[in-house]
Amino acid sequence: MSDGGTGIEALISLISRLPGLGPRSARRVVLMLLKKRTTLMAPLAQALSVVAQSARDCTLCGNISTDDMCDICTNTQRRSSGEICVVEDVADLWAMERGMAFQGCYHILGGTLSPLDGIGPEDLRIPDLVVRVEAGDIREVILALSATVDGQTTAHYVAESLEASQVRVTSLAQGVPIGGELDYLDDGTIKAALRARRPLF
Amino acid sequence: MSDGGTGIEALISLISRLPGLGPRSARRVVLMLLKKRTTLMAPLAQALSVVAQSARDCTLCGNISTDDMCDICTNTQRRSSGEICVVEDVADLWAMERGMAFQGCYHILGGTLSPLDGIGPEDLRIPDLVVRVEAGDIREVILALSATVDGQTTAHYVAESLEASQVRVTSLAQGVPIGGELDYLDDGTIKAALRARRPLF
Repeated sequence: MSDGGTGIEALISLISRLPGLGPRSARRVVLMLLKKRTTLMAPLAQALSVVAQSARDCTLCGNISTDDMCDICTNTQRRSSGEICVVEDVADLWAMERGMAFQGCYHILGGTLSPLDGIGPEDLRIPDLVVRVEAGDIREVILALSATVDGQTTAHYVAESLEASQVRVTSLAQGVPIGGELDYLDDGTIKAALRARRPLF
Repeated sequence: MSDGGTGIEALISLISRLPGLGPRSARRVVLMLLKKRTTLMAPLAQALSVVAQSARDCTLCGNISTDDMCDICTNTQRRSSGEICVVEDVADLWAMERGMAFQGCYHILGGTLSPLDGIGPEDLRIPDLVVRVEAGDIREVILALSATVDGQTTAHYVAESLEASQVRVTSLAQGVPIGGELDYLDDGTIKAALRARRPLF
């Protein structure tokens, strides 16, 4: 039946395709937008249209940006750190930035090696990384890839690709997460934490 | 920290204001939109802009529509039924339509009487309803208001306002919901269902 005209129905169907939203919550979103037509709906349409037109991949690191080069790569202080953090995708970069612990630049691979899905080294931005490192001024490459089989396979492949350039290659530490209780941790994490134990004195 | 440019940050902040979405899920939505820039983001911007410009209240029933009169009010078959279902807002109209049980027209009050919030009869579309009923061709007014104190107060007020027009005024039945287990029902519902019990033979 009619939900108030074809335009509104089309909008509900588009919004229900967003992650975490179904037909019911999409209707709720549209009702709220209809109530706030000028204060929320019009600005949202405008913001979406601007980003859809201007968003592109940073030519250096692959981060999504509204310019040719992203905010991080244009920051000379961050570039002069000589550190590149290698992540799988933009979501991981945003997660690292939320932590505010890293002050260098990034390199986004665009996924992990996955022979089963037909994703080989040529599908990721690994050759770009090698070129970037060989161009110089890079002291350290930090691999911040998922602690999954695919993530770790990719980490090893990237490390091998960078062997010739003699750059320092490190990886995020694996162990007990902050706030984690041993009782609830999986065996793999406990084993990794034990292997990587460190002296307190 | 930067989530990839001011345009993208502004978009995340707008999306996080939608119901059921917080900053974290808004970021997830934006990441997905950025991946589907042409297939989802641009069409969504377009659909939002069209609806924001064209959506208005139906002049007869108050339903939201992209025309002066909504699909339901322009449907002559539905208007000729002579039945008006009175609901609080558009969400309730959509809920009734999902049930596909009602074939008449609607009248949206725009809320319920609520003296505590300063909402009196003049703030709702009750006078419009009286005019509509007195204009004729209406056989029955069905009150489909919430079974809350405010909803029932409003129902009584609407019924009294319509007394002079001598139209038949009915209300949705109250009782055990379909699929409801007695054990989990509140006392009020059980009492209402018992009061409104009906003979099987």
